[in-house]
Amino acid sequence: MELTTVLIISVLSLAFAVWLTTNVLKNDTGTPEMQVISNAIKEGAEAFLRRQYKTITVLSVVFAAIIFILYGFIRAHNPADPVGPLKMAGYVTVSFIFGALSSGIAGYIGMFVSIRSNIRTASAARSSLNRALQIAMRGGAVSGLFVVAMSLLGVGGLYAVLSRIGDIPNDKIPFLIVGYGFGASFVALFAQLGGGIYTKAADVGADLVGKVEAGIPEDDPRNPAVIADLVGDNVGDCAGRGADLFESTAAENIGAMILAASLAVAANGMGTPFVKGLIGVMLFPLVVRAFGLIASIIGVMSVRTREDADPMKALNRGYYVTTALAAIGFLGGTRWLLYSEKKPDAWIYYFICGLIGLLTSVAFVFITQYYTEYKYRPVRQIAESSQTGPATNIITGIAVGFECTALPVIVISIAIVASYYIGGLVGLPGSGLFGTAVATMGMLGTAAYILAMDTFGPITDNAGGIVEMSQQPDEIRIKTDRLDAVGNTTKALTKGYAIGSAALAAFLLFSAYLDEVRNYTTGSKSPAAAMFVGDTAVVNLAKPEVFVGGLLGAMLVFVFSAFAIKAVGNAAYTVINEVRRQFKEKPGILQGKDKPDYARCVDIVTLGALRQMVLPGVLAVGMPIAVGLVFKLLGIGAETVAAFLMVGTIGGILVATFLNNGGGAWDNAKKFIETGMYGGKRSEAHKAAVVGDTVGDPFKDTAGPSLHVLIKLLSTITLVLAPLFI
Amino acid sequence: MELTTVLIISVLSLAFAVWLTTNVLKNDTGTPEMQVISNAIKEGAEAFLRRQYKTITVLSVVFAAIIFILYGFIRAHNPADPVGPLKMAGYVTVSFIFGALSSGIAGYIGMFVSIRSNIRTASAARSSLNRALQIAMRGGAVSGLFVVAMSLLGVGGLYAVLSRIGDIPNDKIPFLIVGYGFGASFVALFAQLGGGIYTKAADVGADLVGKVEAGIPEDDPRNPAVIADLVGDNVGDCAGRGADLFESTAAENIGAMILAASLAVAANGMGTPFVKGLIGVMLFPLVVRAFGLIASIIGVMSVRTREDADPMKALNRGYYVTTALAAIGFLGGTRWLLYSEKKPDAWIYYFICGLIGLLTSVAFVFITQYYTEYKYRPVRQIAESSQTGPATNIITGIAVGFECTALPVIVISIAIVASYYIGGLVGLPGSGLFGTAVATMGMLGTAAYILAMDTFGPITDNAGGIVEMSQQPDEIRIKTDRLDAVGNTTKALTKGYAIGSAALAAFLLFSAYLDEVRNYTTGSKSPAAAMFVGDTAVVNLAKPEVFVGGLLGAMLVFVFSAFAIKAVGNAAYTVINEVRRQFKEKPGILQGKDKPDYARCVDIVTLGALRQMVLPGVLAVGMPIAVGLVFKLLGIGAETVAAFLMVGTIGGILVATFLNNGGGAWDNAKKFIETGMYGGKRSEAHKAAVVGDTVGDPFKDTAGPSLHVLIKLLSTITLVLAPLFI
Repeated sequence: MELTTVLIISVLSLAFAVWLTTNVLKNDTGTPEMQVISNAIKEGAEAFLRRQYKTITVLSVVFAAIIFILYGFIRAHNPADPVGPLKMAGYVTVSFIFGALSSGIAGYIGMFVSIRSNIRTASAARSSLNRALQIAMRGGAVSGLFVVAMSLLGVGGLYAVLSRIGDIPNDKIPFLIVGYGFGASFVALFAQLGGGIYTKAADVGADLVGKVEAGIPEDDPRNPAVIADLVGDNVGDCAGRGADLFESTAAENIGAMILAASLAVAANGMGTPFVKGLIGVMLFPLVVRAFGLIASIIGVMSVRTREDADPMKALNRGYYVTTALAAIGFLGGTRWLLYSEKKPDAWIYYFICGLIGLLTSVAFVFITQYYTEYKYRPVRQIAESSQTGPATNIITGIAVGFECTALPVIVISIAIVASYYIGGLVGLPGSGLFGTAVATMGMLGTAAYILAMDTFGPITDNAGGIVEMSQQPDEIRIKTDRLDAVGNTTKALTKGYAIGSAALAAFLLFSAYLDEVRNYTTGSKSPAAAMFVGDTAVVNLAKPEVFVGGLLGAMLVFVFSAFAIKAVGNAAYTVINEVRRQFKEKPGILQGKDKPDYARCVDIVTLGALRQMVLPGVLAVGMPIAVGLVFKLLGIGAETVAAFLMVGTIGGILVATFLNNGGGAWDNAKKFIETGMYGGKRSEAHKAAVVGDTVGDPFKDTAGPSLHVLIKLLSTITLVLAPLFI
Repeated sequence: MELTTVLIISVLSLAFAVWLTTNVLKNDTGTPEMQVISNAIKEGAEAFLRRQYKTITVLSVVFAAIIFILYGFIRAHNPADPVGPLKMAGYVTVSFIFGALSSGIAGYIGMFVSIRSNIRTASAARSSLNRALQIAMRGGAVSGLFVVAMSLLGVGGLYAVLSRIGDIPNDKIPFLIVGYGFGASFVALFAQLGGGIYTKAADVGADLVGKVEAGIPEDDPRNPAVIADLVGDNVGDCAGRGADLFESTAAENIGAMILAASLAVAANGMGTPFVKGLIGVMLFPLVVRAFGLIASIIGVMSVRTREDADPMKALNRGYYVTTALAAIGFLGGTRWLLYSEKKPDAWIYYFICGLIGLLTSVAFVFITQYYTEYKYRPVRQIAESSQTGPATNIITGIAVGFECTALPVIVISIAIVASYYIGGLVGLPGSGLFGTAVATMGMLGTAAYILAMDTFGPITDNAGGIVEMSQQPDEIRIKTDRLDAVGNTTKALTKGYAIGSAALAAFLLFSAYLDEVRNYTTGSKSPAAAMFVGDTAVVNLAKPEVFVGGLLGAMLVFVFSAFAIKAVGNAAYTVINEVRRQFKEKPGILQGKDKPDYARCVDIVTLGALRQMVLPGVLAVGMPIAVGLVFKLLGIGAETVAAFLMVGTIGGILVATFLNNGGGAWDNAKKFIETGMYGGKRSEAHKAAVVGDTVGDPFKDTAGPSLHVLIKLLSTITLVLAPLFI
């Protein structure tokens, strides 16, 4: 019943997404000039994704082979394995491949619709702001619905298959499908890195030569890198973030199921079973996520605006509708699946945990707005300091970036501790931890809507570019500019949301890892058995090795960020040289007489980005494995890896928040000056603000979002490879 | 005998430092023009220090009162207290005041000599490079010797007094004198913050209006902020870093004594006592530090250069001499005090731990040079990327800063784990932890020499400024420029060294905290007793509250950095406005006809810096207390604070390394371009590099060094207030 509900809602959501696609595609595609540009974007984006997927496929196959060999042949069979070595290797490897594949598909479909919605949004803007808003939002919703529904279908489907094979106890199934989450993370890491490097290399390259050197405006058709820049918005924000949130939902669902299984087993053992039993509790995370899908669909369809209103208000209204409906879904879900006759209050406590999660996501939306919108002090300070030049702009921006970590950390701290305590009131072993898992599910309840808002960003950005490049009248430009500004905000919000949910989920994924280690060491002579005092896992930071593990985890975050940022610099350098070459060889381009060679720029960025994504990607995957194996030699692999994972997560949360919000604040400080402050466009303050904006680009669109994926990749890779570190 | 050795060597070192002072002061003070400038610097620096000490005195007295009240009246008497509440409050408070006072004196004396050595160095440069080098280095050595000798005298003296009062068991004395370390940290925090804010506000202000807006060179006498800038080098680098290293040596000595006492007690308990007993082992850290003082004196006196040689080579030679002698001192110290008849290899293992510490400091010196000198790839990359403007300069610089955390972390990780294992071979409870303490002592063995090199920096910087402003002939300028360049390197090295020793010492201070908590909970019903499994302290990051503690600790590092950086911006803003005002009201200044009002600039920066240091300082002191008290309500105060401290330390190590080396690299990338690369001075690349240099200033001279102090303050404050969190 529970599983059927999940699968039916997921399939219906996919069907709805397909209907939405045809609905969006039916719209008018504008003038021939607009189509020329839109087609160039489409071709560039598809060419990039084709090549990128080829590279990722090779990497995934190599890694799948490594996993298979490690599990099937290298590692000794452990009595705790639910099945034999080869079969186990098969399950994990197939889950990995399936997860990788699903993540790729989710990313592709999101982009497929996005690069077709942009021109329709642009065209609709000629007649109605509301129409344009709705097309962009619904185009974005396709991406959101596909991501969430596919992750539910994947996890639910794997569960259905494995539970019917019948040789695995139900509560062990989640451990076999963690490969799915890891496959998704693996692809997401490279998708986000490659896309992030692409989008910012093109953007930085286009801006530096175009705006700064040649003095032509943004999105000017004379700039050879301008199409590459527009392509970048799709492959980075859309395909990249799609893959990111896909793996979040997948990994966190599996982690929550693992905790749910422990809880249900404990409840049975104590004679206070939940009415719906092990399966009901274990599928609870999937069911409430499915209800969240319905809430998101209604939320998306409710978005509409008056022609003279602020479009952000319309999106916010939709978000509140979604949140309210998700809360109702939670009420139903907890009562249905977490009701226990012996503990009649349990479901109420968990409902409150879910509300905490929902409120946390609302808090993150507000905090991110405060730090990245120019209505508020932080961005205004950056703009003000631009008057004394680029150096003070950068200094203030970095200070704002460092400062803005405070509120999110405090909110997350409260959410974790509160949901842990409230869950703990249920009074079962593990009920507190499950409380944090339920809060995470609450936070993810609105994921599909948030993702729709995120994809709204590149669609409206592209629509603006198309309108600009096809030289439409000013009144249309004003409309698309308004949508574009809203898109910038929503993109920033999604990043805040993604990092917030990663932070809240951290605990749940740690616990899954610790559960897995416990499974493997209970009753064994492994030194890792010393990690448990009774049934409680201990990650003792007071041990030098464990402390060093934490130190190395935090270091990974810094070095990974360095590589990601450098990758953008390297790739941008090739674009800059190419644009300069074109300007030099064909002086007619700048005079508007010659056509620049857009395709060559697209090509160069594609090659550069794909080459540059490998080093940070391999570092992220390789370092946890290296730490685990080295410290295993010292007899303390599992505990050191746990600290590596936990402190790495802490570092990731802080650095990603710094990078995302710092970058967003610089961006909007520039926009604030462009409204006419401090001399407006072309003033010295504006030039200084452009420097800050450029610096912020690889922060907020490459390194920051890649860190979200890194955090979750650390959780899934350690979870999947835990048996190797013991 | 041991104590006598320590006290005698310390007193003799102080005497030697006094002799060195008279020796330096005997030198020629140059032309009247030079004296005018030097006097202006002297007055400014002394005025700043006077006002700063007034502010710090008020803050210290308030805090001392709070400590007294908390210990004497609020907190319930605990059976583990060695003495009654009022007496205990008295000891801790007096130690605190004494530590604060000593730290202030050490900072003042260092600066006293520094602001008198600068003109003598400048004057000597007119005749001999070697003479100038020696004056600067010996002037610097006064600071180094005072800091280290006074900290030994303070800790040793307090020990002597308390052991003679006689109502306290010897092994409990270190816990009563932790107040000394905390007092030193407390003053160091404000000294470093205030000085750091002052120096960079003046520097950024002078550069932005002078170099960038008015187009006059650095150290040009027409710039009204130029004296303030020269004053800043003294109060920031000299008084600030002096206080920083003073508290390092004090806190780490006390921490090492606490571990030594545990070890000696355990050795006695197991029937394998050390020959020199509890007191010998406990005073071992002080004795080897005293030997290090002798090594440093010989090292400093061995520094000499040929007129045409690279002065850096002379300083490096002196450093190697010091290191070799310190190693010999270690050999003697370990054989003397750590010999055990039943465990005849013990002293050899600990000697190896000491060598690990010495090698770690050498490794840090090399790594810092690699990342901050323009002979190597990182700085060259930043210089190269300056060609495409300030944005790429900043992006590359930040990437280099993130990247450069890798090697230091790896070195520290190896040093911690290796010294822990080698110490563990001794085979006593706590012998591994004491191994990390011995390694820390090894690293600190060369502290006086390193600090001499550090103070060498502002002396030569000032000498260069004096030569420039008094318009001496070019050949002299070239000499002082060479010394100044070396001074920049040595300043960077000291920062690397300071953070490295803080990282290595971290463990030792954590352990002291955990020991203190154990003292207070053994046999008690406090919930903190649950932190111990048998005798082993557990800081279990897998508990949500403890994880949240860690998250908050890391957050403190980010927010503190934000406040420190912002403080510079705010203070610089006042300088910029003042310089602009002077240029506007007296146009004759820029034409060289009118004299600018230097004193007013000095005054404005002083006020600004002191006002701005309060917020970050209070945050640093208040947050650990707040976390401890809040989580105490949840019954898990001590363990959460431990995680706060540990993960905060990890965050501090990484962020400080990022800030220090990133800033140093930007500085030297600019210098590299000034050698004629990429168009040399006045090229676009140079302008871009100036932006990077300016951004790096508050990183490397304010926030970074303040973080060193913050890390150690966290250790001492939690140690002193541990009884409140239980």
